[in-house]
Amino acid sequence: MVTGTADDVLAHVDNELPGALGRLLEFLRIPSISTDPAHAADCQVAADWLVSDLASIGFDVARRPTEGHPMVVGHADGPGRHVLFYGHYDVQPVDPLDLWDRPPFEPTVEETPAGQVIRGRGASDDKGQLMTFVEACRAWKAVRGTLPARISLLFEGEEESGSPSLVPFLRDNAAELRAELALICDTGLFGHDTPAIVTMLRGLVAEEVTIVGPAKDLHSGMYGGLAINPIRVLSKILASLHDADGRVTLPGFYDDVEELPEAIRSQWQALDFDARAFLAEVGLSTLAGERDRSALEQLWSRPTCDVNGIAGGYAGDGFKTVLPSRATAKVSFRLVARQNPEAVRDAFRARVREMLPPDCRAEFVGHGASPASVMRTDDPAFEAARAALAEEWGRPAAFVGCGGSIPIAGCFQDILGMDSLMVGFGRDDDQIHAPNEKYDVECFHKGIRSWVRILDRLSRGA
Amino acid sequence: MVTGTADDVLAHVDNELPGALGRLLEFLRIPSISTDPAHAADCQVAADWLVSDLASIGFDVARRPTEGHPMVVGHADGPGRHVLFYGHYDVQPVDPLDLWDRPPFEPTVEETPAGQVIRGRGASDDKGQLMTFVEACRAWKAVRGTLPARISLLFEGEEESGSPSLVPFLRDNAAELRAELALICDTGLFGHDTPAIVTMLRGLVAEEVTIVGPAKDLHSGMYGGLAINPIRVLSKILASLHDADGRVTLPGFYDDVEELPEAIRSQWQALDFDARAFLAEVGLSTLAGERDRSALEQLWSRPTCDVNGIAGGYAGDGFKTVLPSRATAKVSFRLVARQNPEAVRDAFRARVREMLPPDCRAEFVGHGASPASVMRTDDPAFEAARAALAEEWGRPAAFVGCGGSIPIAGCFQDILGMDSLMVGFGRDDDQIHAPNEKYDVECFHKGIRSWVRILDRLSRGA
Repeated sequence: MVTGTADDVLAHVDNELPGALGRLLEFLRIPSISTDPAHAADCQVAADWLVSDLASIGFDVARRPTEGHPMVVGHADGPGRHVLFYGHYDVQPVDPLDLWDRPPFEPTVEETPAGQVIRGRGASDDKGQLMTFVEACRAWKAVRGTLPARISLLFEGEEESGSPSLVPFLRDNAAELRAELALICDTGLFGHDTPAIVTMLRGLVAEEVTIVGPAKDLHSGMYGGLAINPIRVLSKILASLHDADGRVTLPGFYDDVEELPEAIRSQWQALDFDARAFLAEVGLSTLAGERDRSALEQLWSRPTCDVNGIAGGYAGDGFKTVLPSRATAKVSFRLVARQNPEAVRDAFRARVREMLPPDCRAEFVGHGASPASVMRTDDPAFEAARAALAEEWGRPAAFVGCGGSIPIAGCFQDILGMDSLMVGFGRDDDQIHAPNEKYDVECFHKGIRSWVRILDRLSRGA
Repeated sequence: MVTGTADDVLAHVDNELPGALGRLLEFLRIPSISTDPAHAADCQVAADWLVSDLASIGFDVARRPTEGHPMVVGHADGPGRHVLFYGHYDVQPVDPLDLWDRPPFEPTVEETPAGQVIRGRGASDDKGQLMTFVEACRAWKAVRGTLPARISLLFEGEEESGSPSLVPFLRDNAAELRAELALICDTGLFGHDTPAIVTMLRGLVAEEVTIVGPAKDLHSGMYGGLAINPIRVLSKILASLHDADGRVTLPGFYDDVEELPEAIRSQWQALDFDARAFLAEVGLSTLAGERDRSALEQLWSRPTCDVNGIAGGYAGDGFKTVLPSRATAKVSFRLVARQNPEAVRDAFRARVREMLPPDCRAEFVGHGASPASVMRTDDPAFEAARAALAEEWGRPAAFVGCGGSIPIAGCFQDILGMDSLMVGFGRDDDQIHAPNEKYDVECFHKGIRSWVRILDRLSRGA
């Protein structure tokens, strides 16, 4: 039954690319926005779509209920090591909708001066990326009749909304899900076409704070000058979070932050990162983070605090002279090394409380917390994947950091005791989490081929 | 043809109250929100409603076009002085809609433990108030066959959105609109039932500022720590506007502010204002304005700066780790004495610009500006009105200040050279500009009767 070589599989991938693109567009048409309760049913539809597709490749696969959106779990036997592939089928919200050039859930393949792109919400993050692995499995099965390794699959539907069901699900199903290594496809290339394996991930604490003052909205003529204004209170608190050097002012915030080892610092310097070009792409020219830190340090190995949203009073057209009863901000911290998410959350809440004037109270909503993760790169799979990626992309793969958090990598370490090999094919201009998200067809295509090459090595015991 | 006494008119008002309430409810059902372009047609409908109603009383009245919402202007001859009555038929927006106990434009007369109230947007500000004067005229005409004075009317449809058309309209129609004195019904009682004549009004400068940083919304994992965040920049600017004593920090802000004359200070002390109760009604306990100023000073004779709205990034359900491209705040200043609105606006814009970090720019939208106004109370109409109000309410009327701006009073001074007699019957708990706005039926009824008494004196030459 086993026939064909890895090269045959790669040729099959090339020939069958239109079919793979068609399947991805179908998947992208499902508006599985996990953070918005109005889209709960769409998340179920996306999970069902995956179940049906994976079953057709021969996975023993099912939708698995959680308190929130379902997981999709599948298994298939094969030679070589036991790996668990992870991806997420949920996507980010699409506002502001008026900045999209086409409806975000009517995806298409567009011709652009830089080549063909798949355009639509989730094209890159993470539906397009996860399908690179699924399509690699499909091609392998089609050509060789079986899969190249013992493969388990875990697809989550809450990655963009704090993964509330993930930890309980991993705990409840640890025996079933534990493998030798996790494979995760939710990261990017370095620069335009340097393949990258992420070995350091920042953690994240997300926190929502509402300052409540007057019992109701007031008229600023009737009360202005006399009644406390929650927007002013909130502004003072937010303004207090950084000092003039861009450092976070919460007590103890840097206690568990480590300086970068010299070896890694040299490796990052060798990457020759063009910070000026990186910033220029989004209309900026100046590093705005901690003074005296390199751009890659600011992105990969230094913690941050940012305000991701703020709202209070009247913000529509025109003007309304209201003194609002409340004002809200969404604040997040990117964490590194051994920073403890709950300690950071506590320090933030303590700061808010200590700055509250009379007549104000604070309400908090925690939106998830995950520590940073660092992988052990002495597992042979890391070197095997570097070699496979070098073969496909024609240049060495780099071990890099990642400024975003992928909480799953930390959870796999903590709960299942396994590290993650994080390989992805996104590009910096993919506009993930923003209007007009896209995924280059080249990345999708070479991504599938990359996984074929990696799986080939894993099938031979790497 | 002239028959009946002022007492006959008052009796008529009492007997015909149900009809007057019915007309007001009809008027309140028109959602004439001037600041919202979606309600432009409703503003026209409200203007037409007034034209039709006033014509039925015998006014020579017409809708008059402007660049924005129309004016309604009417005239009727009569004995006594020539007065111009002013009111506004537009209303505030109704958000947050979910805090209303009934649809804001389905008004009703409700029985409450404190008596009957008219509930709905505009019930107090200003449709209910302006109709007290219209109903007084209607009753006078019905009983006596003519009107008690030479009365001109001016009803505006843009008072809640900065009155952009007012100044040009007054300039273009000065000869037609100029009278000996303006009458304005857009203020309140002092406390629960002390009639009040407002002789000092604070001015207002309203300003919208948008901080623009990155060319698009960014992912805070990919850019966080390195890219400038407009919400953080805006928060620092807003936090800089006040010092620890609650004083505004803009250079020169207090240069044209005057200390209160001792006579007025004594009069205000005699009012025995219960600041604790005033604050407690809205869930507060502490004066939050300038340190060492009395509550009435903070409200009536001291300038302020407040933030009336703020928006940026993702503020919906859940969490989105976005670094927004822009953040906006609506900021207003209440002005007193001879403070120059444009100088205050310039000082604010200069502060914003001087605090802008690299890669950020500021966009400004001015939303109208009006200086404070102080009336000359030696016109005999002021004493006549005090006497009339004392008769109706059973206690002396007070000359008071007003924390809100009524720009029209300043415009009447500047453009038409006439002062305004500001008499109104709103109560502090009317929830104007907020959900569940109401107007007490007692205030509506006694308001109509008050105007009958004032008009009676004016008809006799006061």
